[in-house]
Amino acid sequence: MTDAATQVRKADHIRICLEEDVQFRQISNGLERYRFTHCCLPELDRNNIDLTTQFLDKQLGAPILISSMTGGTEQAATINRRLAIAAQQYKIPMGVGSQRVALEKPEVADTFAVRKYAPDIPLFANLGAVQLNYNCGLEQCLRIVDILEADALILHINPLQECIQPQGDTNFHGLFDKIETVCSKLPVPVIAKEVGNGISAAMAKKLLAVGVTAIDVAGAGGTSWAMVESERAQNTMGRRLGRTFSDWGLPTAECIKSIRKVDGNVPLIASGGLRHGLDIAKSIALGANIAGLAMPFLKAAATSEIAVCELIEVLIAEITTVLFCTGNIDIEQLKRSQSLQLVQRLE
Amino acid sequence: MTDAATQVRKADHIRICLEEDVQFRQISNGLERYRFTHCCLPELDRNNIDLTTQFLDKQLGAPILISSMTGGTEQAATINRRLAIAAQQYKIPMGVGSQRVALEKPEVADTFAVRKYAPDIPLFANLGAVQLNYNCGLEQCLRIVDILEADALILHINPLQECIQPQGDTNFHGLFDKIETVCSKLPVPVIAKEVGNGISAAMAKKLLAVGVTAIDVAGAGGTSWAMVESERAQNTMGRRLGRTFSDWGLPTAECIKSIRKVDGNVPLIASGGLRHGLDIAKSIALGANIAGLAMPFLKAAATSEIAVCELIEVLIAEITTVLFCTGNIDIEQLKRSQSLQLVQRLE
Amino acid sequence: MTDAATQVRKADHIRICLEEDVQFRQISNGLERYRFTHCCLPELDRNNIDLTTQFLDKQLGAPILISSMTGGTEQAATINRRLAIAAQQYKIPMGVGSQRVALEKPEVADTFAVRKYAPDIPLFANLGAVQLNYNCGLEQCLRIVDILEADALILHINPLQECIQPQGDTNFHGLFDKIETVCSKLPVPVIAKEVGNGISAAMAKKLLAVGVTAIDVAGAGGTSWAMVESERAQNTMGRRLGRTFSDWGLPTAECIKSIRKVDGNVPLIASGGLRHGLDIAKSIALGANIAGLAMPFLKAAATSEIAVCELIEVLIAEITTVLFCTGNIDIEQLKRSQSLQLVQRLE
Amino acid sequence: MTDAATQVRKADHIRICLEEDVQFRQISNGLERYRFTHCCLPELDRNNIDLTTQFLDKQLGAPILISSMTGGTEQAATINRRLAIAAQQYKIPMGVGSQRVALEKPEVADTFAVRKYAPDIPLFANLGAVQLNYNCGLEQCLRIVDILEADALILHINPLQECIQPQGDTNFHGLFDKIETVCSKLPVPVIAKEVGNGISAAMAKKLLAVGVTAIDVAGAGGTSWAMVESERAQNTMGRRLGRTFSDWGLPTAECIKSIRKVDGNVPLIASGGLRHGLDIAKSIALGANIAGLAMPFLKAAATSEIAVCELIEVLIAEITTVLFCTGNIDIEQLKRSQSLQLVQRLE
Ligand SMILES: Cc1cc2nc3c(=O)[nH]c(=O)nc-3n(C[C@H](O)[C@H](O)[C@H](O)COP(=O)(O)O)c2cc1C
Ligand SMILES: Cc1cc2nc3c(=O)[nH]c(=O)nc-3n(C[C@H](O)[C@H](O)[C@H](O)COP(=O)(O)O)c2cc1C
Ligand SMILES: Cc1cc2nc3c(=O)[nH]c(=O)nc-3n(C[C@H](O)[C@H](O)[C@H](O)COP(=O)(O)O)c2cc1C
Ligand SMILES: Cc1cc2nc3c(=O)[nH]c(=O)nc-3n(C[C@H](O)[C@H](O)[C@H](O)COP(=O)(O)O)c2cc1C
Repeated sequence: MTDAATQVRKADHIRICLEEDVQFRQISNGLERYRFTHCCLPELDRNNIDLTTQFLDKQLGAPILISSMTGGTEQAATINRRLAIAAQQYKIPMGVGSQRVALEKPEVADTFAVRKYAPDIPLFANLGAVQLNYNCGLEQCLRIVDILEADALILHINPLQECIQPQGDTNFHGLFDKIETVCSKLPVPVIAKEVGNGISAAMAKKLLAVGVTAIDVAGAGGTSWAMVESERAQNTMGRRLGRTFSDWGLPTAECIKSIRKVDGNVPLIASGGLRHGLDIAKSIALGANIAGLAMPFLKAAATSEIAVCELIEVLIAEITTVLFCTGNIDIEQLKRSQSLQLVQRLE
Repeated sequence: MTDAATQVRKADHIRICLEEDVQFRQISNGLERYRFTHCCLPELDRNNIDLTTQFLDKQLGAPILISSMTGGTEQAATINRRLAIAAQQYKIPMGVGSQRVALEKPEVADTFAVRKYAPDIPLFANLGAVQLNYNCGLEQCLRIVDILEADALILHINPLQECIQPQGDTNFHGLFDKIETVCSKLPVPVIAKEVGNGISAAMAKKLLAVGVTAIDVAGAGGTSWAMVESERAQNTMGRRLGRTFSDWGLPTAECIKSIRKVDGNVPLIASGGLRHGLDIAKSIALGANIAGLAMPFLKAAATSEIAVCELIEVLIAEITTVLFCTGNIDIEQLKRSQSLQLVQRLE
Repeated sequence: MTDAATQVRKADHIRICLEEDVQFRQISNGLERYRFTHCCLPELDRNNIDLTTQFLDKQLGAPILISSMTGGTEQAATINRRLAIAAQQYKIPMGVGSQRVALEKPEVADTFAVRKYAPDIPLFANLGAVQLNYNCGLEQCLRIVDILEADALILHINPLQECIQPQGDTNFHGLFDKIETVCSKLPVPVIAKEVGNGISAAMAKKLLAVGVTAIDVAGAGGTSWAMVESERAQNTMGRRLGRTFSDWGLPTAECIKSIRKVDGNVPLIASGGLRHGLDIAKSIALGANIAGLAMPFLKAAATSEIAVCELIEVLIAEITTVLFCTGNIDIEQLKRSQSLQLVQRLE
Repeated sequence: MTDAATQVRKADHIRICLEEDVQFRQISNGLERYRFTHCCLPELDRNNIDLTTQFLDKQLGAPILISSMTGGTEQAATINRRLAIAAQQYKIPMGVGSQRVALEKPEVADTFAVRKYAPDIPLFANLGAVQLNYNCGLEQCLRIVDILEADALILHINPLQECIQPQGDTNFHGLFDKIETVCSKLPVPVIAKEVGNGISAAMAKKLLAVGVTAIDVAGAGGTSWAMVESERAQNTMGRRLGRTFSDWGLPTAECIKSIRKVDGNVPLIASGGLRHGLDIAKSIALGANIAGLAMPFLKAAATSEIAVCELIEVLIAEITTVLFCTGNIDIEQLKRSQSLQLVQRLE
């Protein structure tokens, strides 16, 4: 795929995500099956509730991540700037979209370079893991980390998207070895991330075994990349292929639960279909360290910097409300508490 | 919050409850999961069925409570008067809304003072438990009990509502101790009550341990205060916060069952989403002593005194029909009978 | 209730049943939970399939009953005549509606007297059991059996209907003793029948203990008499009372299964919400001897005698198709076969 | 039934299938209860994925069958030609519709004779098993195999369809013996197939015992022949009969699972309601060797040969996508893998 094509595709993605309904159709993130036990007398002052948390040795203002999305075009630069300024204000981490286009066209590298707006937060570089089979290696990884002055590199793994996308890069052979090389040589930690179909516990274990530091499950239930690529398709057959797989994957809640079960310590990011602070709080109670949202941040950033700030504020208010109404003073206590219950179907 | 603001808020609540749909959206009171076993040959004369029952040492005409709602404005005074006259007619207990405004503006105390219309029934005074952290103490509790010549004081506990409400009172620190003081010094019993998010068995035990006499679960499934406050919000973010929590809480049926399981004797009020006598009868069969309704009484009282009487009559007819068609002659027999079954999902 | 009033009520019932939707709203007859195992190679000639069966020592052309419905008015006489002629043609049994009006106004007895149209089939007389507390006794039972030259007397028991109906007869005290007297003295067998709310296994045992010969469960899931009486109500409160109880009762499938479990021999009629031959076949496979339909026969009879015949023919074709596609040659084999399975919910 | 009538009926079937909604209404093929476990890092090159498989000792390009449908008319000849040309191109097997009409009217035999368009693929002749009771025997079976130069004979068994169809052939007596004779004498293998109501494990065992080589379950969940015949009915009663049985039968997924459980080796065809390659892949993971579709191929063939090719291509792309995203390189590996999971209902 040429670099111009990459740029056009990235612009298409944003337009489709903003204009079409590309969410999973039947499968949810799985969090609706859980309910917090209400605590009517929390014995707390809500003003004392503390959302700060640690992730990859950095202090965050709240356990919220702006998921990897964009870069490479004018519009993307604007979106990234707005997101970064807001992220800096609330001290939350942020990822950028795949930087492959910046490798192909160095003159657009700047559309990713948000460190100047966000000096203090964790920033995550981004590349498709499959690109390690298509002319990318350690050198390219170093370069994109540099562009961003990134704190970590996210390698996203997206076999379904590459299958649906015309001319997708679908040679996934031998990737574990190549990921292992990158992990061992790169000066920053590597995060493995899906893009909306989820990572199983078995795959998480394999990824950790080759040196990955953290996992972002990016599970099923939110933005469906099969649906996005279906919208981009040029003919009936392409549209149908995407639709057949609109609901493919592992729901976010299941990924979190099963990965945390096999590994009590791995830094774990919940994402995929999270839409409010109640989802975030549930993810954390299920075992995630922080929780990422993509689509909601895209919509806010398409509007204004203020809209992004407002979104973060309401997420914070929602998480705080959960902590208050379950009687937990901070994120650590929420995790240890038994506040979240699987809904019992009595009938 | 100023006293004028309190009054405006109370007027808003009534208007919104009467005009908007502010019920829980996805969660029900949980009673639909239970079904009475029909008894086709009851061997009873329906005319002999007896709905009288005891609650807090008083005799009631039927196990129905008019839940705490209002006071402080002209309209509220009218509503309270209509409710009180009807309650007196059928010998059922009644609560008034939070009397905090009467403490702030003594000249409106009269809007609560319904004892003159209802000399013989149990009347329940009302205050938010959290106010014990905001300048209310034993003295204020005594005063509001006095205004009403109340038989008991309801302390309502509403952490979610206070979170959603702008400038809500959200310091719930140290409340158990203060409740204990009030319970030990007040000459009338104290009832602890939620406002629609439910009281768990664990919280009920703690409340009883500090001297509370009775529990009104006010569970999830009926009027959703998160929705009410969402309607009152001045901006998008406020509206969203309320909606995120529209379905928060413990369903009424679950609260009743679990509290009765841990304490066979506590005087227990079912409320939250009860809409007819069949709900009331189910609540009692699950373990409640009496059952309260708020929204249905508000709607009736907004119309006329006669409408309130008609509502009580149909509730009585419905409860009587349940007793008849299950072959139980009185409330005590209903409780002991095994008439209520969890619906078996055969498939 | 005066006799004129009884006549008006009966006319109302027919009009409402024909014009309004008075079926159960949420509860079904429970048969949809069962599925026949398809037998793709039945090794039968469909022409050899035999639907004849015995009931109360009489031979029937098919295990279908025209349930008790009407009498007492011109229109009722027409309906009864059409039903009787068709029943005679296919040799299936038929019940008439409550004959109380014929006791009150002997001049309308003729509207029930269908023996002249149906010399060879079992005919069932009908009276509300509760009337034994309201001036009816053995003498009256004898008289209505005589009017019809009946093969059995159905005593219907309808506590819910009497509760919803204005001025209903709701003294059900001491009825078991009175039923016992009737059973012991009457020259024909007595069948106990509900009217759409079902008979539990426990009640069936009590009824058999006092001498009842057969049980017609008339369970929940079809015509809802609470709904019918709700439509007849003169005011809001009456309408509401009926609606609250629209879905009260024990589903037909559950009644059949539980009664057959406690008594392997009692002649058992399935009815309540059966709408086609597949329902009838399922009822029989669950343990019923024959199966009754009311509403579908009312609709057909309101049209023409031919419509009733066509309905019976399609019911026969449907039952025959079930037998063929499950590889059973007759009703007895269907009963012994394990063709009916509870649907397994795999998920 | 006369031969002209047979032709008219066949033309009716095609018209109804193309124009009316004749799918099962409430019962599905059962595959939605299963979900593949997503494998985010397949370690495969998608280009190396291999869909070839063996069936009845022949090599296929993909595990897809064009199910038996038509023949006997002009339109049918066109459809069969288009299907055959496409099948040849992708090396997938194809069945033709019942050849009974070709026995009755030899001049239409040509409408079935597609071997000239498809020299290399397995072709399956077709006859209703029940015809062995209506003047068909070994000789006729040989003749229709000859017409097609068929690799196997499909005997379809359709008791429900024959019941609903006016003047259907419903003497299924003694068929096992006659099937045994055909199986033992015919030079090609015999496949037993339903037409949309499924074959149970018990029936499969009996069919194998009399010499049948392979089973095509043709289960419930797709085209409902009761619905098709209901559309063809000339009167209300006929229409109703078909509708009563619209959802009769055993879901495809259940047939596959239960038959494979009792026989690990029988060549097994999944069909009935399969609509895309994801359904096909699930069927194979559940135990089928290949999977057939009828209705989707009818719709494509009614358009053009290209439409049929496009359909096959998208099916191939879908199956390939499943293999890729579950990390399986070929059909054999998919079968052995544990990639398919019953969806756990957590709530
Ligand atoms: C417009 C857009 C572009 C995206 N681009 C990338 C990307 O380049 N790299 C990546 O790892 N994920 C990308 N994603 C996936 C998201 O990071 C996220 O995993 C996915 O959308 C699910 O989250 P959601 O349901 O909150 O949207 C993108 C998402 C969106 C909406
Ligand atoms: C207009 C209105 C005002 C209320 N005000 C109070 C109050 O002041 N104090 C209180 O304890 N509960 C208050 N409630 C809550 C009710 O007592 C009750 O717990 C809740 O509405 C759930 O019952 P429902 O579903 O029957 O409405 C109020 C309810 C309504 C509808
Ligand atoms: C118009 C009408 C009148 C009825 N009258 C009687 C009656 O007099 N006696 C009786 O035992 N049942 C009576 N029933 C009840 C039926 O016999 C039957 O039990 C009930 O309607 C449920 O069956 P269905 O769902 O097939 O209608 C009547 C039903 C209808 C529709
Ligand atoms: C128009 C049409 C004609 C059919 N004719 C036959 C037939 O002659 N012989 C046969 O075995 N099956 C026949 N079938 C049944 C199919 O082979 C298949 O078993 C059934 O339609 C279920 O598959 P589907 O849901 O993919 O349509 C026919 C199906 C269709 C749609």
